[in-house]
Amino acid sequence: MNSAAPVREFEIIERVFRRVSGRADVVLGIGDDAAVTRLSAGRELVTATDTLVCGTHFAADAPPHSVGYRSLAVNLSDLAAMGADPAWASLAISLPAVDDDWLESFALGFFELADKYDVELIGGDTVRGPLAATVTLQGSVPDGAAVTRGGAQEGDMIYLTGNPGDAVAGRLLLTGELTGKKSPDADTLLTRRFMYPEPRITEGLALRTIATAMIDISDGLHADLTHLLTASGAGAELDVSQLPLSVELLELVGESRASKFALCGGDDYELCFTAPAERAKDIAAMAESRGCPCSQIGTVSAGGKIEWHLHGRHYDVPVDGFRHFE
Amino acid sequence: MNSAAPVREFEIIERVFRRVSGRADVVLGIGDDAAVTRLSAGRELVTATDTLVCGTHFAADAPPHSVGYRSLAVNLSDLAAMGADPAWASLAISLPAVDDDWLESFALGFFELADKYDVELIGGDTVRGPLAATVTLQGSVPDGAAVTRGGAQEGDMIYLTGNPGDAVAGRLLLTGELTGKKSPDADTLLTRRFMYPEPRITEGLALRTIATAMIDISDGLHADLTHLLTASGAGAELDVSQLPLSVELLELVGESRASKFALCGGDDYELCFTAPAERAKDIAAMAESRGCPCSQIGTVSAGGKIEWHLHGRHYDVPVDGFRHFE
Repeated sequence: MNSAAPVREFEIIERVFRRVSGRADVVLGIGDDAAVTRLSAGRELVTATDTLVCGTHFAADAPPHSVGYRSLAVNLSDLAAMGADPAWASLAISLPAVDDDWLESFALGFFELADKYDVELIGGDTVRGPLAATVTLQGSVPDGAAVTRGGAQEGDMIYLTGNPGDAVAGRLLLTGELTGKKSPDADTLLTRRFMYPEPRITEGLALRTIATAMIDISDGLHADLTHLLTASGAGAELDVSQLPLSVELLELVGESRASKFALCGGDDYELCFTAPAERAKDIAAMAESRGCPCSQIGTVSAGGKIEWHLHGRHYDVPVDGFRHFE
Repeated sequence: MNSAAPVREFEIIERVFRRVSGRADVVLGIGDDAAVTRLSAGRELVTATDTLVCGTHFAADAPPHSVGYRSLAVNLSDLAAMGADPAWASLAISLPAVDDDWLESFALGFFELADKYDVELIGGDTVRGPLAATVTLQGSVPDGAAVTRGGAQEGDMIYLTGNPGDAVAGRLLLTGELTGKKSPDADTLLTRRFMYPEPRITEGLALRTIATAMIDISDGLHADLTHLLTASGAGAELDVSQLPLSVELLELVGESRASKFALCGGDDYELCFTAPAERAKDIAAMAESRGCPCSQIGTVSAGGKIEWHLHGRHYDVPVDGFRHFE
């Protein structure tokens, strides 16, 4: 073990990741022992951390551009689920050897998304080790306005953005565990949904005053909805036939497997949220104005039971998650 | 690759890392998509991120208690170098398999230091992958009060806390690259300095109104002092014979190698700072009251040249850092 960073690594970080400061609230960005930032009065800080590891979250031959993009996207999705405005990111990269091309492509993917949401990279660490990237993302909400997992009320409607199940299909197409059938365009769409998930930042912000509880479904819809309902001390009645499955997913694997993908697949950076029935119009307007599908999939019930139905009958969600039902 | 976290991992994180909230400024801690915290009015946020990777920063057989402790210590040291009060930590752990004993021991080490400095763990991520831990630490300073690397002025004195070089000696004793000689107690002290560095939080806070520039010397005194002077657009005249070498280090490797360890070894989480000559009494008082050695090792000069002397003659610092002079 040897802790001291070689000089060259320091230089590449400076060259690849240090940029002219973009945000007025960054007092001191990359290049000191720590970053200094300013939070506006009347706002609370929101912080999320997520790691992507080679071999677990992306393949060794994954395009570094996609890895850089996703390393930020998964954190943006966490902030979206709180209804937070993203602001500042810290990036810790571990890599076996300095690889200029890999790092530059990673940075391009990272900054593509950072620029889109006005996120500034304020610091980080680069170390020698197995390939992995950890991003810590900070943002803010008005005081007391964060949407937690704990606010769902009996009678609330349960909604979902986007098309769940696409991402896991894309992942399995990439690994060859699924084989594309007829449409190369559909395969491209599905793999893109895995490699370049669109975090629901603007939807999260719009839902901040609408949703009673919210979560992103990165671990799979059923598992994450269970977390939300547990935190809310509630249960739910849900309808599998209401799952907004994409045409591409249905064509690829059929309705039965598509439903399982949607319920347990994971890697869908969509928002699952609850809201009172009287907000249905606001939700429809939000979905319409943003071109974001927003589907009602069930209703919050009293007690802790989560009941999925299909064609009027009980539906068994594979309890052990995705790996155990393929 | 498979992104969905297995259920058991989720449970162990809950059990090992989730604790009763201790700080009043934590609105929402572990257990939601992101944490929510409150920054006091009149304060700026200070953020640092550091990664420890198995094989690079600690050995595979390192006590997990020490790894947990160091994962926070290295970040506390970064905040100390800004003169910041630490507050909230996020922890991303990658591990090859769930290992209850390892994680529990890691958590004990982490919380030992967290409790000492009133740091609350507010969130994180646990993923399957090669053993590594990334901590992001947030803290604060009064508006505009952060001590950067860029404020050193010609004529300022250059100071150093603690005994540089001890940590690298400890590391080499642990790997067997150095062999202890006479005193098991001395060996224990040196290895402890590597495994359990004491971050200079209280010293950093006391120096906030004294130091003109400050940095921690985790990459080695010479390299980090160079960063400070470059950021300040200044040079320095320094005296190798003023380096505060510990008796234990001197006994182990002799004065010549001890100086090299001190200059280029790294892993010393000490503070190097500059201050006007008229603050010498304040610095002595600070050192005295805290029992922290604080040694003057040189003077800031105009221009960019960093000149080390020994016995009145030029002294060549091994330019490529530690690995290249052993």
